[in-house]
Amino acid sequence: MEKKFTYGQLFAFTQSVFLQIGCNATDAAIATKALLSADLRGIDSHGVARLSGYVRLWEAKRVNAKPAIKIVHETPSTAVVDGDAGLGLVVAPAAMQIAIDKAKNVGTGWVSVKNSNHFGIAGHHAMMALDNEMIGIAMTNASPLLAPTFSIESLLRTNPIAVAIPAGNEPAFVADFATTTAANGKLEMLQRKNSDTPAGWVQDKNGNTSTNAHELKNGGALLPLGGDAAHGSHKGYALGAIVDIFSAILSGANYGPWVPPFPAYVPMPENMPGEGIGHFFGAMRIDAFRPADDFKQHMDKWIQRFKSAKTVEGEQSVLIPGEPERIMEAERKKNGIQLLQPVINDLIELEKKFSVELI
Amino acid sequence: MEKKFTYGQLFAFTQSVFLQIGCNATDAAIATKALLSADLRGIDSHGVARLSGYVRLWEAKRVNAKPAIKIVHETPSTAVVDGDAGLGLVVAPAAMQIAIDKAKNVGTGWVSVKNSNHFGIAGHHAMMALDNEMIGIAMTNASPLLAPTFSIESLLRTNPIAVAIPAGNEPAFVADFATTTAANGKLEMLQRKNSDTPAGWVQDKNGNTSTNAHELKNGGALLPLGGDAAHGSHKGYALGAIVDIFSAILSGANYGPWVPPFPAYVPMPENMPGEGIGHFFGAMRIDAFRPADDFKQHMDKWIQRFKSAKTVEGEQSVLIPGEPERIMEAERKKNGIQLLQPVINDLIELEKKFSVELI
Repeated sequence: MEKKFTYGQLFAFTQSVFLQIGCNATDAAIATKALLSADLRGIDSHGVARLSGYVRLWEAKRVNAKPAIKIVHETPSTAVVDGDAGLGLVVAPAAMQIAIDKAKNVGTGWVSVKNSNHFGIAGHHAMMALDNEMIGIAMTNASPLLAPTFSIESLLRTNPIAVAIPAGNEPAFVADFATTTAANGKLEMLQRKNSDTPAGWVQDKNGNTSTNAHELKNGGALLPLGGDAAHGSHKGYALGAIVDIFSAILSGANYGPWVPPFPAYVPMPENMPGEGIGHFFGAMRIDAFRPADDFKQHMDKWIQRFKSAKTVEGEQSVLIPGEPERIMEAERKKNGIQLLQPVINDLIELEKKFSVELI
Repeated sequence: MEKKFTYGQLFAFTQSVFLQIGCNATDAAIATKALLSADLRGIDSHGVARLSGYVRLWEAKRVNAKPAIKIVHETPSTAVVDGDAGLGLVVAPAAMQIAIDKAKNVGTGWVSVKNSNHFGIAGHHAMMALDNEMIGIAMTNASPLLAPTFSIESLLRTNPIAVAIPAGNEPAFVADFATTTAANGKLEMLQRKNSDTPAGWVQDKNGNTSTNAHELKNGGALLPLGGDAAHGSHKGYALGAIVDIFSAILSGANYGPWVPPFPAYVPMPENMPGEGIGHFFGAMRIDAFRPADDFKQHMDKWIQRFKSAKTVEGEQSVLIPGEPERIMEAERKKNGIQLLQPVINDLIELEKKFSVELI
């Protein structure tokens, strides 16, 4: 069972829920926009499907709906931000804005964040830079699901990296990807269908290749981008490690196996070395390097050349990072967002809990 | 046939060759150190094996041995550097130093470079930051060998990314990796042995999977990290694209299919949109985020936790990025560097050409 909702319907409902847990009006709108950007862009695992999860974190007193987000250390081009256990959906845009403001002043801005929670999709925050003629960068750590090359213990999560780069007449270049072979959301889709995964996505608890989409429940782990050592999995592991270090060791958040889990029922790790989860943001002003118009003209040329490359038979064109998500967003803004029945059931529970109406 | 040389022998010889082509004493030493760092760290494809290639570029007047390297645009945290067609081995350390100096002043420094040539291994330049209690980042583009996902045309090269992060008592974390499944140097090793590649390294001219290590000569291409679309090759392609854009579109260098080739006998591309090849460097002062001692203590904890992870049977430990290269460097500094006969033959040619002696 699936049902379509308009973006407006989901926006009004989600905003009401965030207001009900105590967010002020500004924060509720910011958090809603960040959360639903995932649904619009087709990253269904990170959107409204997680709303009840955020509420449970608030119920467990792990999310502070009225955070006093503050800079705890800074230089002209850097800052460490304490998210005061706020929703990552609110903390991240605030931290990205600090990066953008610093870039306005000295060319670039770099902000590492501690004491935060999940921030939705990285691409949404990176894209804040685009309206300011800047390149935007966003990354985050989270509780472990990924085993580094040769490990059978999970020590990192999917630790995504997003990089948004403005163009001229062409749409912006927006890369936003997990540093695992496959994002956990893709694995969840196969779990729902009881389908096998391609080889190279997961390993079992002993580190053997597996195609069982449910392997993580049995002590297995996601694999780093590359899949195995012969195909460069040490590179995916290194990328995930860099995200962890920039997000958490620069800021003072938790890292590696000590990052707090998203499900509120999972106990917190023992002897945590930091505060909350960590993010890292960057903004680089284009005209801190060369005139923005020159840059955009060459970005257009780059994009057009890649899009017009000769393709493997059966493929229409080389895709520019962000292109499928942009097409999805236009389609879903126009025709609505289809939700699966389990997600709708979660929203119905929230309707009852907060006496807010979905439709 | 192989033969071992001491680091000192190779240093003296290489430095003499750079002096003979017209480098001043300082630049010859800097270039030699950069080039031989590849041999020390076990990246044999990028070290003294390329010395004759650099000389041929100089003979073809594509390398300027006396470059006037200059900043053409800057802000407090950024610069664009014109390498004046110098050896990348000289231009890159100069640009990285500018990034480090900017980081001393405002917390971070970011330098995009145009009009340069090949710079050896990215890790060497990134590691310059370590002595300054900074995180170092280095990347470069080069002439295309890689086909983006769905493409049969090569539009990017192996576009490496290096990130060097200081630790306390533990050795530094130094990631340095091609954004392809396998570095071209690894492919060249299989070519010399006439061995097959694992599936997922290369495709043939029609975009079909191939295990022929010689496929690139037949119109084939390297594949992005991930290998194919089902294993996230769009992520490797996106990473390579980001390196290309940061290195060349921010600076005004050539990008995509227009980057000049390393072999001097290969004709230059037509209608080049920029100058030379491009690099990108970053330096972030640790104490622009938090006290360096706190950071290092947590880096040590991170490294120790990852190194002590339970491993897949048969593997001794999880490796920290940079660990194999560091062990190799210590071993080769002590016991010498083994060169293959074709490389020795190239050096003998250089002995004759410049009347310098290898031993």
